[in-house]
Order: sequence, then C-alpha cells, then structure tokens
Amino acid sequence: MKNDLKLKNLKGTVDFLPSQQAARDFIVETLKKSFVKYGYLPVESAILCPFDLLSSKYAGGAEILKEVYRLKDQGDRDLGLRYDLTVPFAKLIAANQNLPLPFRRFEIGKVFRDGPVKLGRNREFTQCDIDVCGIPGRLVEAEFFQMTEECFSNLGLDVEIVWNNRKYLAGILEDCNVKEISKAILCLDKLEKIGKEEVAVELEKEGLSTGEIKRIFELLSKDPKEIFKTAKSQTLKDGCEEILELSELISKLGLKTCKFSSTLARGLEIYTGTIWEVFDKTKKISSSLCGGGRYDEIIGKFIDDGKQYPALGMTFGLEPISILVGEKFKEESLLDLSIFAFDKNYYVLEIAKKFREANIKTVVDFSSSRLKKFLESSSNQKIPFVAIIGEDEIKENKVMLRDMKNSTQSALSIEEAIEVIKKGRK
Amino acid sequence: MKNDLKLKNLKGTVDFLPSQQAARDFIVETLKKSFVKYGYLPVESAILCPFDLLSSKYAGGAEILKEVYRLKDQGDRDLGLRYDLTVPFAKLIAANQNLPLPFRRFEIGKVFRDGPVKLGRNREFTQCDIDVCGIPGRLVEAEFFQMTEECFSNLGLDVEIVWNNRKYLAGILEDCNVKEISKAILCLDKLEKIGKEEVAVELEKEGLSTGEIKRIFELLSKDPKEIFKTAKSQTLKDGCEEILELSELISKLGLKTCKFSSTLARGLEIYTGTIWEVFDKTKKISSSLCGGGRYDEIIGKFIDDGKQYPALGMTFGLEPISILVGEKFKEESLLDLSIFAFDKNYYVLEIAKKFREANIKTVVDFSSSRLKKFLESSSNQKIPFVAIIGEDEIKENKVMLRDMKNSTQSALSIEEAIEVIKKGRK
Repeated sequence: MKNDLKLKNLKGTVDFLPSQQAARDFIVETLKKSFVKYGYLPVESAILCPFDLLSSKYAGGAEILKEVYRLKDQGDRDLGLRYDLTVPFAKLIAANQNLPLPFRRFEIGKVFRDGPVKLGRNREFTQCDIDVCGIPGRLVEAEFFQMTEECFSNLGLDVEIVWNNRKYLAGILEDCNVKEISKAILCLDKLEKIGKEEVAVELEKEGLSTGEIKRIFELLSKDPKEIFKTAKSQTLKDGCEEILELSELISKLGLKTCKFSSTLARGLEIYTGTIWEVFDKTKKISSSLCGGGRYDEIIGKFIDDGKQYPALGMTFGLEPISILVGEKFKEESLLDLSIFAFDKNYYVLEIAKKFREANIKTVVDFSSSRLKKFLESSSNQKIPFVAIIGEDEIKENKVMLRDMKNSTQSALSIEEAIEVIKKGRK
Repeated sequence: MKNDLKLKNLKGTVDFLPSQQAARDFIVETLKKSFVKYGYLPVESAILCPFDLLSSKYAGGAEILKEVYRLKDQGDRDLGLRYDLTVPFAKLIAANQNLPLPFRRFEIGKVFRDGPVKLGRNREFTQCDIDVCGIPGRLVEAEFFQMTEECFSNLGLDVEIVWNNRKYLAGILEDCNVKEISKAILCLDKLEKIGKEEVAVELEKEGLSTGEIKRIFELLSKDPKEIFKTAKSQTLKDGCEEILELSELISKLGLKTCKFSSTLARGLEIYTGTIWEVFDKTKKISSSLCGGGRYDEIIGKFIDDGKQYPALGMTFGLEPISILVGEKFKEESLLDLSIFAFDKNYYVLEIAKKFREANIKTVVDFSSSRLKKFLESSSNQKIPFVAIIGEDEIKENKVMLRDMKNSTQSALSIEEAIEVIKKGRK
C-alpha cells in the first residue's frame, strides 16, 4: 500500500470503527429514550451556518469565534461550521415564532472547533444537547437532575452531579466588592484544575487584594444557609434562596447523586442561575461528562423583542462518556450468528432470513471455501454461534449449530437453533 | 422581533423541527435494525477531510469536485467537507489494513455539495450508506435486494427495485462499435427523464450515426437471454451471464419487488456490474429513493497494492424517503401524557417518574396557572391523555385521567392510568 498522507485523518478528527461506534450508538440511543420519556423531542439544525449567525453579539463571544471554521460557498457567502448546538437552538426559537412555549427539544450532532486538541477533546466532535425554553423556577431544574440520574443509571455509569448557582457565586463576589465579576468567575472556574493557591494568584492579577481573596474563599467555604443570614446584595440573597429551594427538592425526590459545591463555576458567561457538571465517580475520566445550567437572558437578547425567554439546558459529551462505556463493547461480538454453507446457493439466504426474522443478527459467509478458515474468522470476530450447512443438513432441513465458546455442536432444526441462540444471549 | 437575515437558513440547508425529525429518526432506526440483522456494523467517519483525499484520482471525479466546500484551518491546511460516504469507506479500508475482509459497514451522516438546489436535493443532506468490501458474485447482490425489500416493508412503503448490469449496458454499446462508452452511458442515464428522442439527439452529438443509435435501442429492447445468443464482446457475454444468474436467484428467493430494466444506467462512473435504483410505486416521488451497485475496481485503485477489492453498496436517501414517511407523523403526537398539578410541587415529579418508568412519554406542566389554558395547549399538541392533580387526587393517591379524544375523564390510581394509556396506544 502506498504510504499516503491523504489517508491520515486531520488532526482533531476521528474515524470510529464498529467496536467504538457501537458504544457511541448505544449511548445515543439510551439518552434519546430518556429524553423522549421526559417530553423532549428531536430536532436537527444545519451544520453550515451564515457566519453572521455564529458571530452575532449574543452567541458564544470572542473566545469561541477564533475557533470557528470559516469558508465561502460558490455564491461568495460568508459561512461557518456551527461550534455548538445552543446557538442553533436560540435561532430555531427566534426563526419560528409560532412554536408554542415552553419548547423542549434535544439535538445530537457534530460541532466543530478549530482549537487545541487533547484527550477527549477533538476539533470535530458530537454533542448531545437537551434544552427547554419558557420555564422559570427550580422544579424543572430538579427534573433535569432526575433525568440525568436516570440517563447515567441506564448507561451503567456511577456519577456525581455537582451543582452550584451563578447568582450565589456572583453575589459572594459582589459582597466582597469585586468589580469584574465575570473575570473573577473565570478564575474560580480553574479551582479544580490548578488549585486554590494558583487561583489566588490569578485573582490578584485581576486587582483583588489579599484580604478580599481571603474573604472570598472564607464565604465559599460556608453553608448557603449561613451566608443567607449575612448576605448584603440582592444577587446573593436570590442565589441563596434558589440554592435552598433546589436543595429541598433534591432531598424530597431522593436524588442521591446530586452534590452542592460552592466552587463549581462553569466557564461560559451565559449562565444566570443553577449550574451543574457531571463527573465520573470512578475517576477514570477527570474532566466533566456533562455540563449545564440556567441561561435566562441569552435567547431574549438574541430575539430582542422585549419578552422573557427563561431557558435551561445541558450537554452530554459523547466522547468522554464513550470512553467509559466503550470498555464493555470490546468484550463481546455485535453479531449473534455466522452461517457457512459448503455449497453457496440461494437456500443459504432463505435460512438466514428465518434467523433474521427471529431478530438474530446473522452474517452469511459467501466466499470461504474451507470450513477451518471460516471457523477461525468467526472466532476472531467473537461471534458466539455458527451454523454449518452441508448435504446432510439440507436433506434433513437442519443446521449444524456450533457454540463457539465451548466448541460443542449439534444438528438442530432452525426453530431449535433460534431457541438455543436466544438463550445464549444475555 | 427583528427581521434578521442571519435567522434565515442558508440556501440548501434545512432545520428539521420535531414533527419532521421524528420521521427521520424513525427511518434511520428502522434501517439500522435491518442493517445490523444482516451483519453490517456501524462506523462514523470524519466530515472534515484533507482536500487531497476528496480530490484523489479514484474518488468522485471532476464533476463532483466543483461542488466540494473547501476551507482552510488555522494551520493553513487545505480541507474540504466530505461529499459522500463512499470515499470515506474506501479510505477506512485503505487506512486500516488489519481490517478482516469481507468488511461490512453502514454509515449514516451528513454530506455536503455546493450544487443546484431542488425539491429533495439540498446542499447539506443525510446519506444512509451500506457497503461490503471483499465479496464477488451474485449471491451477496441477491442478499442486498432481500434486505432492501425488508427495509421498505418495515418502513411501510410500496417500492420497486429496478435493476440492470453495467457490463450488459457497456457490452451492448461495445457490440454497436461505440467508442466513448462512459459518455454514451451518461446519455442513456437520462432516458427516464428526457425520453428516447432526446437521448437519441444527445447520442448523435457524441458522434453516433442514426443507424448505430437505432441498433442500440433495438438491442436494449430485447431479452438478455436473446442477446446472449448473438453477443460478440466478452463484456456483453459476461453481462448477460450475470443478469441470468441474478434473475434466477431473485426468482428462487421470491423477491417480488425486483424488476429488470435494460435502460437503467446510473450516472456514476464507478460501477462495474449489477446496478439498481429503488422507486416509489405510488409515484408521489419520481426520483429514486435509493441507488446502489457493484464497484469492483475503485477501492483497489485507491489502495493501489495490486490486490482485488470487490465491493457492493447502496445509499438510502433520507430526504426523499422522509417525504413519504413524514405524512404519518403529522397526524399523531409524539408524546403520551401531559401532567397538570394545581400546586406545582415535587410530588408532580414523583408521579411523572412512575409513568416514565412504565415507558410512557410524559411531559410535566410547570407554568400554566389555569387548567383551561393547559388543556388547550395539550389539545393543540395532540397529546392523547392528560393527568390532572388537585387536592382530592393527592389525598386519594390518584390522578384525574382525561382522554383528550373523547373528552371523558375519571379518577384512577397511577397503575390504572398506566393501563388505560397503554391500551390507548397503537
């Protein structure tokens, strides 16, 4: 084979082979099932967008704009590839003013960012977003946590939903006389990554005094109930109230994986209230698996009609989740049965059809002339059963069914073989 | 609302709202189920490709290259958006030489072509491709027809699989002394669209005499069995043999929707044997819903290692199929139940959870204060059942279940309500 450069994938893009893609499909299907059960419906927005849309004032901001893939079409239009699914969501609501609110949707699709590449972070990657526009209050936030717990339980993953409130965080900073609150929040966002000392250094760079920084960390270590008693700013009072309200719902609903953390910040500027991230409890993956929050102002500013558009949503990261789920899929075959006939003729397809009608994933061998080679190949593919068809089997209307795990075989009718294969499946 | 240009979709790109997207999801899931039952496994390839890959000699050719969206990344690399899923398939095999052959895969994803836009043909659209590399012969072709029949039967669509053979078509032209065979095939490809007279004019432009053109149409109108007796070129003899062999398999397998047509040509140059297209029998859509064929030479030329890579594959067009399937989805709600509580409190989520655990798609109302408005909105969304929860219901641990179709309601336990809703579902 020519050692061809064109055969290499672009940096930050990945081709997924069946063993990986099957895990990704399983995750997507599992999430979709829960999303729909919670009343969220699928949409699909375009990947190719007018650059104007991606760069509009209330979209992602300057940081993310640097990472947009830009291009022109034959009509010399300025285009870009979408970099998230939130801008298309806001646009969908703005462009379809007859949509009844609240509007609940999920979208699963590719997004593109021409940024730094690292483990679990590519330039072309899949996001699974679920959002609702039109509902204020804590109850719908508790429902999001309920749904998130269900999703991860169905995925078989042990996680923790860490949550906080942006008003609370901003309020504490306000009460400590911090001027540039969003910049300070961006510093606090790095706590988990770089530690308290380094964050203190960064806050100092933003012009805060040692006393102010000490005071911030002191307040962050207290219980919101305590903070509420001495809160000065309305922002902090509101933040405390929202936290206490949501805490009560979490406890009444018995949502055991939710854990409040006053230092969770989330980088994005859009959030206005409750925020959360989901972490792998086994610590195999250290970055978050999901993130979300309330963003009550973005869609309204985007539409600019003076109305309120309270919104809440989250993103499930397919890549980090599939690293965790993928382990399972390496062990087992995705197929149930492989069929080999000494005489390659039409009746092989008739027999295969019967297995398939019984929902057995069946692959027919069309080319091996030697049984030994076929058995080797089936074994390499970890296919649990093979059916061998020779002259005797055709005469007796049977197949020789071989259990590949314990290397036993017996001549069975197709109906009997179907039963054996189904029993062999977990 | 500001009448903003950025809110308009780019020409040739579409946003799909839930009623449309649900139909698309149904199609994709139906196809996937059959694909896996036939032993094909999912892969996902990158959308962003090195331009070199897309423009390589054995990819799509000059015609399609004009329609490639090109761009540069921050590293000044020459990139393009993929325009089909066949080039990524060939690349996957070339780049993963340890893949065991035969390799069966399906891929469902977006492709991009900056070409003319018309009904059912966009610039950003979804293809569902299923291909196998490594199997020569007619038996696997018959299996493709068997699978295609199953797919459309599961989609509830009445179709016809029209098939032909490229060797047969090329052989007839060869026997008529045509020099530029691929150009003549491109003319014949327009038969269905522009009719025999216009095709004759085009063939004349390619330098064919009136006599030759008459002879071509004469041969095309004959039975392959007849043609076989007088065939001169080896190409035509091979084409006849392949057709007779596949005909026999089709008839033995009772594949009723398959119909041979000597004039089906398929535009693409890559085909080397059996070709087919699938048409809507109800004639609501006149263009083909699927197309496929054998292309035994492309992957080998692409890899260039002197080995044979016989290949067979087809594309299901999600857009035309979803126009046909979509009708059904407009009629019915995608949800089963909507819950309204006079007092918006945590127990609404507990009740909703029980319905969801019984696999009932349930949306909770968090914001309506008036029952009348809630009922109106549920009716507009065609939700078949609503559950109303007031003080009495909470005391008695019941819900007031209302059947929206016949406007009857009764107080039921949650278990009873689940039974009623399940019975109401088709």
